[in-house]
Amino acid sequence: MPDFPDEEFEHRTIRAQQAMTKAGFDALFLTTEAEIRYFTGFRTLFWQSPTRPWMLVVPRSGKPVAVIPEIGAPLMAETWIDDIRTWPAPRPDDDGVSLAREALAGYDIVATPMGPESTLRMPMLDFRRLGVSFRDASPLILALRAIKSDAEIEAIAAICAIASSGFADAGSLFHPGQSLREAFRDFRIALLRGGADDVPYLVGGAGPEGYADVISPPSDTALQAGDVLMLDTGATRNGYFCDFDRNFALEHASDTARRAYATLNRATEAALNCARPGVTCAELWLVMRNVIGGSGNIGRYGHGLGMQLTEWPSLAAFETTPLSPGMVLTLEPSVATGPETMMVQEENIVITDGPPRLLTTRAAPELPVLT
Amino acid sequence: MPDFPDEEFEHRTIRAQQAMTKAGFDALFLTTEAEIRYFTGFRTLFWQSPTRPWMLVVPRSGKPVAVIPEIGAPLMAETWIDDIRTWPAPRPDDDGVSLAREALAGYDIVATPMGPESTLRMPMLDFRRLGVSFRDASPLILALRAIKSDAEIEAIAAICAIASSGFADAGSLFHPGQSLREAFRDFRIALLRGGADDVPYLVGGAGPEGYADVISPPSDTALQAGDVLMLDTGATRNGYFCDFDRNFALEHASDTARRAYATLNRATEAALNCARPGVTCAELWLVMRNVIGGSGNIGRYGHGLGMQLTEWPSLAAFETTPLSPGMVLTLEPSVATGPETMMVQEENIVITDGPPRLLTTRAAPELPVLT
Repeated sequence: MPDFPDEEFEHRTIRAQQAMTKAGFDALFLTTEAEIRYFTGFRTLFWQSPTRPWMLVVPRSGKPVAVIPEIGAPLMAETWIDDIRTWPAPRPDDDGVSLAREALAGYDIVATPMGPESTLRMPMLDFRRLGVSFRDASPLILALRAIKSDAEIEAIAAICAIASSGFADAGSLFHPGQSLREAFRDFRIALLRGGADDVPYLVGGAGPEGYADVISPPSDTALQAGDVLMLDTGATRNGYFCDFDRNFALEHASDTARRAYATLNRATEAALNCARPGVTCAELWLVMRNVIGGSGNIGRYGHGLGMQLTEWPSLAAFETTPLSPGMVLTLEPSVATGPETMMVQEENIVITDGPPRLLTTRAAPELPVLT
Repeated sequence: MPDFPDEEFEHRTIRAQQAMTKAGFDALFLTTEAEIRYFTGFRTLFWQSPTRPWMLVVPRSGKPVAVIPEIGAPLMAETWIDDIRTWPAPRPDDDGVSLAREALAGYDIVATPMGPESTLRMPMLDFRRLGVSFRDASPLILALRAIKSDAEIEAIAAICAIASSGFADAGSLFHPGQSLREAFRDFRIALLRGGADDVPYLVGGAGPEGYADVISPPSDTALQAGDVLMLDTGATRNGYFCDFDRNFALEHASDTARRAYATLNRATEAALNCARPGVTCAELWLVMRNVIGGSGNIGRYGHGLGMQLTEWPSLAAFETTPLSPGMVLTLEPSVATGPETMMVQEENIVITDGPPRLLTTRAAPELPVLT
């Protein structure tokens, strides 16, 4: 601890402060895991407990100020943060509220994330008791975090490599007769053995012509010869995620599945050839959609990636944000294979001044058949 | 899917509606994973993605209404919920807001959790756009979820048994020379092999006279003979958590560590003898504190447990709530062993009409030494 040298957090803070100056904000007020870790390096699984609020104030100049439960003080003291103010949480009659008010007292214009992708991770009654009329920090935070530093890119590359190795062992991991639950468990263990710290996200499905949805937990249903098995994983190492999937046919594959896979692969190739700085997210979405065809509402074909499984921006028709070097994105085209089935393929890339850098080992050009 | 028969969710909803009638609420508005799963059975790891809001309206009579992103419709359709309203999220110009307004339109008094242990898992600007003057549902929700059904208790018992078996293998899992990171990885794998779906929480530490804090991720430091190794795990199965720890000395133990362990054990015994319906959380806290002694601010000595790693109520001096049959609690006394070190012991219990039922295999009466 922490996962990066102090300079990384200093640099992030300076970039934020430059944006705050432009936006006219005197301070940012943050309550969420990713944002507090982004500026401090404070990483713990203790966020699983909803009992205590955690707060960070980022002033327009100088270091951030942590307003946190006493239980977090030793770990926060290992970060570059000097000003750590604590209270013995939980304390219902004043659960950090007066400390936060003091920390915010000197600032006229304070912003907190209130727009897309944001949540408020403290009780709303306490948030209101702060007595601050907050501005919306979401556009600033989203734009800031979307451009990854070299250190962040290498962290994401490391977990992508671990998951790519895990998928490379598919032939020894997955077989007919195995339940989806067992397949998921064995893959999770393979990722941990390969160096993942954790596998917070692992979903998927199976069926001869695709799967019903891509967010379900695994069932006890046994895999069958002819099924396409898809696993989509968000594994982590040092607090950064990969997010990609792979499809495997067991013993043999239907023509429908082979054709859908080939279409997804062409859509990904088209996206890789298009993903350059200045191209908008909507344009990148459109090149994939043009390969896939179809009509109606298809949704998004990828998104940002980093400290969270999904981050801003979306690769979607509405998103006019241009790609910039340092953006880490998923390419995630999907195609309907029947009235209730679909297939998905996903890769993780970094936008550079030239062609994008693939962080995942590119999926095989044809649907792999495990025999 | 889902993890329980429909009657379980129907029963939870009826209990909520009885409480709503008492409180004078016409509907509840919910945005968080645990609350939405509590009433519907909708369980997915997709909550890892912060991009899309999910909403549930629980009326004072009739079934809950789900207002969710299209991507969740197939999975929600497998639950007992009939009225599922979707939109193609993300959709920045109306990300479920108008659907939620419609779903709330018929109700005069709507409550949403805004107090202790609550968060708002949707953008605050969209929450404000709902145009509803919400009442606070936190007391109702906390009291409701604190009393577990028999089915919930068996779910928690199952994961406690899996983790107890994992700890029983400590002798073959942990040894000097191993890094904390390796020890954590091997324990995580043992839990998965034993039947855990996931291990969202695994923290701990090591040192000859205890550890510096109990929320840190594992370091690459090698374990030494004489260290006390503590692992605290929140593993899950079917969406329910265990939350307890175990301490192990490697090869030999310091007198300080042995004495602290014995004190913690006596505190736990005192708590087990005291934890009866009608006793308050504060009284249960006090019997542990009386064993441990010391002065100053000690914090809490346990908490509720269930769908989340920590739940209301706290075993703390401020908490006057009486224990009731069906409450699942952790007993978690801690003791300082030096200016910067501590030790903790944790068990999981259910309050019954008689003595509490232990869900964890009780920790050994003396500090176990792994040789």
